[in-house]
Amino acid sequence: MSDEIKSKNITWHHGEITRQDREQMNRHKSAVIWFTGLSGSGKSTLAHAVEKRLFELGCRTYVLDGDNVRHGLNKNLGFSPSDREENIRRIGEVANLFQQAGLVAMTAFISPYRADRDKARAVASDSFLEVYVKCSIEACESRDTKGLYKKARAGEVKEFTGISAPYEEPLNPELVVCTDCETLDESAERVMALLRHRGIVGA
Amino acid sequence: MSDEIKSKNITWHHGEITRQDREQMNRHKSAVIWFTGLSGSGKSTLAHAVEKRLFELGCRTYVLDGDNVRHGLNKNLGFSPSDREENIRRIGEVANLFQQAGLVAMTAFISPYRADRDKARAVASDSFLEVYVKCSIEACESRDTKGLYKKARAGEVKEFTGISAPYEEPLNPELVVCTDCETLDESAERVMALLRHRGIVGA
Repeated sequence: MSDEIKSKNITWHHGEITRQDREQMNRHKSAVIWFTGLSGSGKSTLAHAVEKRLFELGCRTYVLDGDNVRHGLNKNLGFSPSDREENIRRIGEVANLFQQAGLVAMTAFISPYRADRDKARAVASDSFLEVYVKCSIEACESRDTKGLYKKARAGEVKEFTGISAPYEEPLNPELVVCTDCETLDESAERVMALLRHRGIVGA
Repeated sequence: MSDEIKSKNITWHHGEITRQDREQMNRHKSAVIWFTGLSGSGKSTLAHAVEKRLFELGCRTYVLDGDNVRHGLNKNLGFSPSDREENIRRIGEVANLFQQAGLVAMTAFISPYRADRDKARAVASDSFLEVYVKCSIEACESRDTKGLYKKARAGEVKEFTGISAPYEEPLNPELVVCTDCETLDESAERVMALLRHRGIVGA
């Protein structure tokens, strides 16, 4: 084998397949849809409902939520302020990687702090769509899908968002959905309308 | 709105789109291809060469490497033993998320410790393909694409794999490629043959 041929093995071939190449293959744009809201507001349910609609259109998607992040990537994080910040930081970085890979990445975490969400927005750049999943604390508490509000009221769960820790509402989200005043179908359709409006998926 | 309609908004809709659904849409299986080897052995170059071939076949892929991980997800990690372990742990978890999303995820990191690679294998389960990118330390050092060997020899870089820190060769990798005795095309084609053999992509 000649040295010339061997030297080809060390050429820097990075970035040959670009995000734009992937979007072209997928026939839709990639994006990060960041669902934020109280525990029990319906973030994960809504994200999966949107995913189902996108999948039926042939779009490539992935939902990051507690189920696949807290027991894996972020299993070494607790609920201290610094751990919560790191939790959201990692999720923002991974969502961006999925976006770079050409997918519509969706995240469904309470993410109560504006500063943390804004950092995720900065990482994902101009294709970050913040969706505030708005629901009264009373409605969330009456659902109490995971029994966490009961535990928070009993003091068994410390620093629980909305009860003993703050939730900072988004100031300029791309969309607000109201899960105690509209149906899941209606909320999901409004997210889809946003994606069409932004040219993420075809009209 | 009736309570019946409202209650639909809190139904647990997780997991509606499965990995199998995504694989069916993509028309290939998902997997984690874990490239391991010395600095300068050609891991990242090979991963991107394989990605190009897969892309041309219409496959969905993503390469995790220093370029997109060290400055993002893992920017808060250094090179201490515990940080190196955490670096590889996070990469293994993210590679698995990409696999769950239906992609052929490739990772290109030295990942010198067997224990760390075995943990990544356990996370990715039965679709983990370890590719040992074998290259003599002399060849890697003569290439010295990043100038790191020179710095390691001068003592400017501490605990450099192969010089002042160990590299534990894989004992049972799915494939060994030899980047100082075969061309990049040959190495890439051998990875493709493995993917065909395992049924990841069509024959």
